[in-house]
Amino acid sequence: MPAYATTMRIKFPVLALGLEVVTIILFALFAEYDDGKGHGHHPEPGNSTPHAASVRFGMFQDVHVMIFIGFGFLMTFLKRYGFSSVGGNLLLAAFGLQWGLLTQGFWHLTDGKIKINIFKIINADFSTATVLISFGAVLGKTSLVQLLIMTVLEIGIFAINEHLVANVFEANDVGASMIIHAFGAYFGLAVARVLYRPGLKNGHENDGSVYHSDLFAMIGTVFLWMFWPSFNSAIAEPGYTQLMAVINTYLSLAACVVSAYAISCLVEHKGKLDMVHIQNATLAGGVAVGTCADMNIGPFGAMLIGFVAGIISTLGFKYLSPILAAKLGIQDTCGVHNLHGMPGILGGLAGIVAVALGKKDGKAAMQAAALASSLGFALVGGVITGFIMKLPFWAQPPDQNCFDDSIYWEVPEEEEEHEESLTAEHYKNKAEV
Amino acid sequence: MPAYATTMRIKFPVLALGLEVVTIILFALFAEYDDGKGHGHHPEPGNSTPHAASVRFGMFQDVHVMIFIGFGFLMTFLKRYGFSSVGGNLLLAAFGLQWGLLTQGFWHLTDGKIKINIFKIINADFSTATVLISFGAVLGKTSLVQLLIMTVLEIGIFAINEHLVANVFEANDVGASMIIHAFGAYFGLAVARVLYRPGLKNGHENDGSVYHSDLFAMIGTVFLWMFWPSFNSAIAEPGYTQLMAVINTYLSLAACVVSAYAISCLVEHKGKLDMVHIQNATLAGGVAVGTCADMNIGPFGAMLIGFVAGIISTLGFKYLSPILAAKLGIQDTCGVHNLHGMPGILGGLAGIVAVALGKKDGKAAMQAAALASSLGFALVGGVITGFIMKLPFWAQPPDQNCFDDSIYWEVPEEEEEHEESLTAEHYKNKAEV
Amino acid sequence: MPAYATTMRIKFPVLALGLEVVTIILFALFAEYDDGKGHGHHPEPGNSTPHAASVRFGMFQDVHVMIFIGFGFLMTFLKRYGFSSVGGNLLLAAFGLQWGLLTQGFWHLTDGKIKINIFKIINADFSTATVLISFGAVLGKTSLVQLLIMTVLEIGIFAINEHLVANVFEANDVGASMIIHAFGAYFGLAVARVLYRPGLKNGHENDGSVYHSDLFAMIGTVFLWMFWPSFNSAIAEPGYTQLMAVINTYLSLAACVVSAYAISCLVEHKGKLDMVHIQNATLAGGVAVGTCADMNIGPFGAMLIGFVAGIISTLGFKYLSPILAAKLGIQDTCGVHNLHGMPGILGGLAGIVAVALGKKDGKAAMQAAALASSLGFALVGGVITGFIMKLPFWAQPPDQNCFDDSIYWEVPEEEEEHEESLTAEHYKNKAEV
Repeated sequence: MPAYATTMRIKFPVLALGLEVVTIILFALFAEYDDGKGHGHHPEPGNSTPHAASVRFGMFQDVHVMIFIGFGFLMTFLKRYGFSSVGGNLLLAAFGLQWGLLTQGFWHLTDGKIKINIFKIINADFSTATVLISFGAVLGKTSLVQLLIMTVLEIGIFAINEHLVANVFEANDVGASMIIHAFGAYFGLAVARVLYRPGLKNGHENDGSVYHSDLFAMIGTVFLWMFWPSFNSAIAEPGYTQLMAVINTYLSLAACVVSAYAISCLVEHKGKLDMVHIQNATLAGGVAVGTCADMNIGPFGAMLIGFVAGIISTLGFKYLSPILAAKLGIQDTCGVHNLHGMPGILGGLAGIVAVALGKKDGKAAMQAAALASSLGFALVGGVITGFIMKLPFWAQPPDQNCFDDSIYWEVPEEEEEHEESLTAEHYKNKAEV
Repeated sequence: MPAYATTMRIKFPVLALGLEVVTIILFALFAEYDDGKGHGHHPEPGNSTPHAASVRFGMFQDVHVMIFIGFGFLMTFLKRYGFSSVGGNLLLAAFGLQWGLLTQGFWHLTDGKIKINIFKIINADFSTATVLISFGAVLGKTSLVQLLIMTVLEIGIFAINEHLVANVFEANDVGASMIIHAFGAYFGLAVARVLYRPGLKNGHENDGSVYHSDLFAMIGTVFLWMFWPSFNSAIAEPGYTQLMAVINTYLSLAACVVSAYAISCLVEHKGKLDMVHIQNATLAGGVAVGTCADMNIGPFGAMLIGFVAGIISTLGFKYLSPILAAKLGIQDTCGVHNLHGMPGILGGLAGIVAVALGKKDGKAAMQAAALASSLGFALVGGVITGFIMKLPFWAQPPDQNCFDDSIYWEVPEEEEEHEESLTAEHYKNKAEV
Repeated sequence: MPAYATTMRIKFPVLALGLEVVTIILFALFAEYDDGKGHGHHPEPGNSTPHAASVRFGMFQDVHVMIFIGFGFLMTFLKRYGFSSVGGNLLLAAFGLQWGLLTQGFWHLTDGKIKINIFKIINADFSTATVLISFGAVLGKTSLVQLLIMTVLEIGIFAINEHLVANVFEANDVGASMIIHAFGAYFGLAVARVLYRPGLKNGHENDGSVYHSDLFAMIGTVFLWMFWPSFNSAIAEPGYTQLMAVINTYLSLAACVVSAYAISCLVEHKGKLDMVHIQNATLAGGVAVGTCADMNIGPFGAMLIGFVAGIISTLGFKYLSPILAAKLGIQDTCGVHNLHGMPGILGGLAGIVAVALGKKDGKAAMQAAALASSLGFALVGGVITGFIMKLPFWAQPPDQNCFDDSIYWEVPEEEEEHEESLTAEHYKNKAEV
């Protein structure tokens, strides 16, 4: 691939400014503040009392932190890709939330307008999570031009599926195991499959961490972990139901940490813990308890779900990811299949069981339809999006420049010299031995 | 400058302990908890209902995070000045909030006492923001002795201007574009001008980042970005007005990110993004929408303001800052002119326009007076403060020790050896080539 | 010690999974969501109004951040022990909060059940703080197997003491100066004494920081510092009392920062600031104001307590810690005696004085009994726990592997090469000189 193809100089500004201008025009035409009047037939759940709104505002801020700090820093584990991770995350989420407000809003117009309130901006943040999960699957192998295109398409498709699940199937998915986590993961994996790079089959020297990049990633992990109770209860019915969602998530995550650590230690032949597992599998309990977080599954039920999720996720990183890469050509940089994919399906299945046990006739089938719909839209949407992203003029990086900030970012000089000096030294030392 | 002049050994402890003892005595004489009684003619806005107070407490915590994590880590981008940045930030803000409670409190006494409540401590945090912005302008070139002096003077002058703007002009500045951002920026730039160092005209080897220092700075950026909606709405009228302030800031910042990224890419000749722009210009939308955040400017109006702010700020970093340094002798370490100065003025102007369009007679003139007053107090106050800080016995660092923690902090030894080793290696490698 | 003794391969997974399974079974038998009914004689304080519950939820999230980010990153200051610090913190706190819900819950059963609500999970988070403080004392010298054992025992003993203090003595300790800070510190110091390692008498090359590890630690410091007002008021009586707790803690911490910086500068012969003091002593004001945070001590009273705490804590790091290590064999890695021990006792004493001045007959004696009880349980419990941890089959690290992640964690290869290269270089340079 010739060098000029990879520069974003003109393509990226034109695309970004163009999208933003269109977005602002659409907002001018369709968006208003929600003055609390005229909701008609679709009152927003849980804005009924000032108290409920006040809890919801706090939860919005928690979700906001998960999206921008949590996802952003979780992906900084790569040694030379921190700028792209936290910086790309900021761009995609900042544009995505505007786009999500529109695409979701069009399904819920009031008097022909999108009435913006706290509930709506929580959902806008949610919609960006799907993109950030998919971003994890293709991290290091795509340009911001490609990723902006993915953002536009994925959030549009998400909004369709979300409407189906919530309004047509009327399925329960308060913490979005299905419509965000499973959807975002399989969408991203489908894109990754289409963008398969044979040249990376034997790995890439930059596809790994250094000591401090692993610590930066833990900032992301811990903020995601801490605020997940808010993620799973932010749009729950205020009061007892919302309390259950908080407690179930709190407990599921706690149990998940213990099982993830235990299995990580068990599967390494020297009994050492692996930061990849700790950074990711400890969060699987939050994903897996999402669908039934606001159901009466009992505190121990939530813990069981988290416990199992931690085991499945860690085993997935250890045994399944290498197989997916080698046999199916799915190069999943962050292992989103293990953190969001399988735990998301587990969450969907747990929801079916919980609803069935709750003896609500016909509801279990609707839950199953919601899971199938989420997976279907994700896979089909991901494949189509992948082919669009594969078109050869979106400034994608050549194989040798993957996982490297310096192709798209000004990187401090000194550090490069440092690396060179170290490398030079390293080879000299080797030569001397 | 002889070595003894730069040690803080006696000067700093004497000044710090002296200021703190005086402050505690003043609190003993004047400060009380606000028991909610006796407010007389000046009821605090928005403590009318428990619900409003509960939202306000959450916003206080968000503002607190912006002040201590946001500003603190934003300035850690320098390669060898992280201790001074986050540590200096903590000291100045911790002392400043006490001082701000007093200086603002004296303008609003109730029965001769300063009645402390959540509203008051939000404003105390706000008052420290002015100092932290000015700190950014002189970062790396001042001692903590000088900075404590600046804190005392700047917060005192801030309180006078704030009183004028809020109580005499009765101007609107809910998110403080004028009284905090423009004020803090131009105050700091005036100080920087007075402290001009010809010896740094050609740059300084430590005046730059390394890879991981840029990631630390992104912690600051993202926390500022996320919690800015709380900053701009923390003292807004509860209810619909506060909701508008949240939504306007949320949208302005989102649009600002997109334009800042696009322009950053466009102005670099290789089309690469620059971390200085990403760390700073993405926040300009929060500054610029501050004055009219709680006005009915429409969601798209907020986005337009943010969009323009992102462009102006990025262009400022690229083209204006070098000119200010070379032609006017204003060495603005963090580029506060681009993040707080110009966007602050933009915010003030947007406020004038919004008020004028709202057809409130005479109000627009008052907004203009508020902007002029903020700039005037900042420039005059900054020049006077600068001359006081320039007195030769405040332990200011010599040119060669600028931007270097090790003059005021114990720095881990190993790292220094590491640097030496690297440098030695570096020159050896060069010699061999 | 032979190599096989230090591997956690079987021991850790068996212990962790075993504990988690037992915990889940106990939850299945005893835990329920709190539906707000059937509280009988022990209504939870402050859940009386929705507003109070909403403030409490925000404070829960703040406490959660302190436990997982605050304590976790505070301990990352060691150059090669960041994975163990933030990762160990996550494991111990995640298991500990489940265990704390049980052990505290058994003292407060309602209809034979533990009814989980926000108040209960705040207390569960609190219980883990004791373990995390003790962890600081033995950091770098213990395996996760030993630490899990410590977690089980310490939280059990904490729950007994907490019950005595709160329900038998009916003493006031809203911010837990005695029952968490003094208890956790002296428990940990007792364990550290029993685990005394003569081999570390002359220090260890990894028992120190590097530049960026000190910045990671500041993330912990600042988050602890910012959210401490919530820690000290989370379980306070809503309304005016809770407001006092917030303001007292806010002011005490602010004054403490100033005195800690001043003394740090004063005691170093070159007048330089020491990151160890800044990272820790700046927090002593939060500890020391804990017991009387919700009492009417006046804003200046709170500031005085913080001011004194900052001085004592800094002097402790400088002068007392070396003596404890050399004379008493107490190797206190993080200096918890200076941050939690002495300030915790100061807090207990301040509580006695405040209660005595409040002229509540007999109450002062109860406060004294609470302090004595907390210290007694800590020391006796710590010694017993220490001897159990000392049993030779818990995979404790040999002296030479202390303070080193790589014995229990997969550490990125490149970094090791880097270190080797640097070390090789270093010696070569020395040889050449």
